[in-house]
Amino acid sequence: MPPTTGPGVLRQEDPRLTERLAQSARAVDGVATGAEEFAKWFADRCASQSQDVTPIPFRSMRNWTFASGTGNLVHDSGRFFTVAGLDVRVDRGPVREWSQPIILQQEIGLLGIAVREIDGVLHLLMQAKTEPGNPNGVQLSPTVQATKSNYTGVHRGRGVPYIEHFRDAEPHRVVADVLQSEHGAWFYRKRNRNMVIEVGPEVEAGEDFCWLTLGQVQEQLRIDHRVNMDARTVLSCLPGAEPAGGVHTGTELLNWITTHQAMPDVETEVVGLAGLPGWRRTEDAVSHESGAFFSVRAVDVVANSREVSGWSQPLIEPHGLGVVSLVVKRFDGVLHALLRARIEPGYIDAIELAPTVQGTPENYAGLPDEERQPFADVERHLAQDTVLFDAEMSEEGGRFYHSRSRYTIVEVGADYPDQEPPGFRWVTVPQLSWLLQHRHYLNVQARSLVACLRAVAG
Amino acid sequence: MPPTTGPGVLRQEDPRLTERLAQSARAVDGVATGAEEFAKWFADRCASQSQDVTPIPFRSMRNWTFASGTGNLVHDSGRFFTVAGLDVRVDRGPVREWSQPIILQQEIGLLGIAVREIDGVLHLLMQAKTEPGNPNGVQLSPTVQATKSNYTGVHRGRGVPYIEHFRDAEPHRVVADVLQSEHGAWFYRKRNRNMVIEVGPEVEAGEDFCWLTLGQVQEQLRIDHRVNMDARTVLSCLPGAEPAGGVHTGTELLNWITTHQAMPDVETEVVGLAGLPGWRRTEDAVSHESGAFFSVRAVDVVANSREVSGWSQPLIEPHGLGVVSLVVKRFDGVLHALLRARIEPGYIDAIELAPTVQGTPENYAGLPDEERQPFADVERHLAQDTVLFDAEMSEEGGRFYHSRSRYTIVEVGADYPDQEPPGFRWVTVPQLSWLLQHRHYLNVQARSLVACLRAVAG
Repeated sequence: MPPTTGPGVLRQEDPRLTERLAQSARAVDGVATGAEEFAKWFADRCASQSQDVTPIPFRSMRNWTFASGTGNLVHDSGRFFTVAGLDVRVDRGPVREWSQPIILQQEIGLLGIAVREIDGVLHLLMQAKTEPGNPNGVQLSPTVQATKSNYTGVHRGRGVPYIEHFRDAEPHRVVADVLQSEHGAWFYRKRNRNMVIEVGPEVEAGEDFCWLTLGQVQEQLRIDHRVNMDARTVLSCLPGAEPAGGVHTGTELLNWITTHQAMPDVETEVVGLAGLPGWRRTEDAVSHESGAFFSVRAVDVVANSREVSGWSQPLIEPHGLGVVSLVVKRFDGVLHALLRARIEPGYIDAIELAPTVQGTPENYAGLPDEERQPFADVERHLAQDTVLFDAEMSEEGGRFYHSRSRYTIVEVGADYPDQEPPGFRWVTVPQLSWLLQHRHYLNVQARSLVACLRAVAG
Repeated sequence: MPPTTGPGVLRQEDPRLTERLAQSARAVDGVATGAEEFAKWFADRCASQSQDVTPIPFRSMRNWTFASGTGNLVHDSGRFFTVAGLDVRVDRGPVREWSQPIILQQEIGLLGIAVREIDGVLHLLMQAKTEPGNPNGVQLSPTVQATKSNYTGVHRGRGVPYIEHFRDAEPHRVVADVLQSEHGAWFYRKRNRNMVIEVGPEVEAGEDFCWLTLGQVQEQLRIDHRVNMDARTVLSCLPGAEPAGGVHTGTELLNWITTHQAMPDVETEVVGLAGLPGWRRTEDAVSHESGAFFSVRAVDVVANSREVSGWSQPLIEPHGLGVVSLVVKRFDGVLHALLRARIEPGYIDAIELAPTVQGTPENYAGLPDEERQPFADVERHLAQDTVLFDAEMSEEGGRFYHSRSRYTIVEVGADYPDQEPPGFRWVTVPQLSWLLQHRHYLNVQARSLVACLRAVAG
């Protein structure tokens, strides 16, 4: 839309948008799609998207090999992703030097949700989609999950339904558009574009798609392994209310964030997967000699709902059940979440903001007591305090095999210390929405919990 | 300051801050330091900081050598910076593949200005500082320019005056704190922390320092090579008015920025300086065979105002006079600047927002007409339109030798097209201030021009 110099050309953010989203969040019983209809649709999708996923030895993979020299796990085409090695040195924390496998995937993926007004209420176009690493098959996914070659290459996204609405979005119909990171412990500087686009009545739901209100999607978040990671991160980037008062002002939070971005020395070097200290490769796994952390595995996939009917691929299999927990507390009646500045080697900046507690207790076995205490604290809060949210969720099933974490939000009372430990800050929900307009402030686990926090604190 | 749960704990941004800055900007004649006093102080500093800078052959450098193998130019200690090579491939633009020398400097520098209220008016503590690459010796510089080892290492900043006010800043006295890039054409992913901190009456100006109002500093910006790059970028990060209406909303601008961050393929690989295609090394320069772009040189420095009285070091010498120009236009009376999404190989993201025109005409000699047209357009605007700003300024004199550019701001009339060419957007001054709260939206040339634009549009 070319601007013109006529009067009235100057434009403002649409003030109705947050109210329209709030209205959609209140419509928990659905408008376009009732609860019964949704349940039937989802069950049908689960039946029709059956997929057999079988762990196989590396040598049985089609089109994937360990490259000579580096020993990196690569696709014959050079596309998709590569599993390489990473040497890490940090100047703080209990472990200051280590080596690990890491996923390299330079392409920026697109994760997009289309929204449309139906009967006066905003609806999200959610997709039922299975991924080989999902512990339960089909999950609710964004309208679009595409790699850049999917949507900019010679094919211009043919075969990716709805991609044209994101690729050719009119600026005034964009609700959110921001780059965000994926897991800094497993990916090296991977980023996805998170988009929400409003579309018109001409857009209808195809077979694998369903129009749901924000309230319906938020209800689904409470069900174990129901809403996938890609949907959660896009939901977290939806605009929220303008920040009002908080324990800290926005400028103070940015000062605290910049301090933690600037201060740590985090040195990383991408190296070959072959001979990575502490890691050994067998016929069917690359694993740490301690048995902790994760393994690189191979699977064979036979599916019936994909453009290709079968393939094999590597997946990362995290060991143990992850703990991802957010402590929230009211100050003057206003909810604040306790965020942590967390170093992960794959971040572009030294840190991103993470939930209060994030990790897998087994991985902390050999570390000092104070490193394991947070997991005991989570157990105690879940037993004693107000549990606002508690569900198991999985990470991206296209890269991770049965990656399960228990995501919880606990509201603590006045006896919980106001004073933050070093590296932690109380942040209000509108301040989180404000930060989420911009790239790489919140990590993917924190973004998942922001989506859940909005669901329970709305 | 630990938060407490008592009433009134919730805090807001200080609404008086922008008015206090505006008041300081209006005080162009000075309050603590009159025009005559300032002139005498600056002349004295120029006299006392005399420095002899002599180009020397590489082999005469003390403590710098070309590393065996890579041929990189490195300091014996491994500190300071390294000149290496960079292979670049981009998927758009007139030149899609090239190699060039590049400066590697992983450490995040600190650029800080202390502000203090004197007689009810905010003053900036500016430093008179010479750098070997400055074309004119002493320039007005921030209170502090320090490397991270200066302020976090074992010395805790001993020898860097005022560093403790930035290192130990109380959050509520922070005016601005954000990471920003340096030149993406010459540095690989270099970042500086830009800070503005309010201090109390106990802080006084040392010999090389002077309290100036914002208006006085803005007047100095108009003088050729008077205010250094580090001061300009910190000034640009000062908070501004809240964005009101614009030709584009903030969400639309973020959508446009994210599109340009996500879309281009920019592949870079750091390689050795030795044998870089198209570049040749002689006794005293590494230069491009065309004679264009820049050379890597060596200088010997004899100074009397430094902790060390003499040293030698490499410097980058750009060839030709740079052109850095911003077109501004009023829409409904509101000033908008025409920013360009510009690819440079050293950025962390594919692009940052750059001035309307940025480059050195000589470097475009072999390119198609349309690549050279913008420089002719700048000449035409300077002759025909309202010139709001026009001064020669230099880039960081610690890395660049006599790097001179003509920075201009031209206000165009109604006949100038409203419609933006691909890759350009009209952005209001408050929107620029809003973006400058966050890292890596505006490149260093655009930040310099924002500092100047505020000076002329206030």
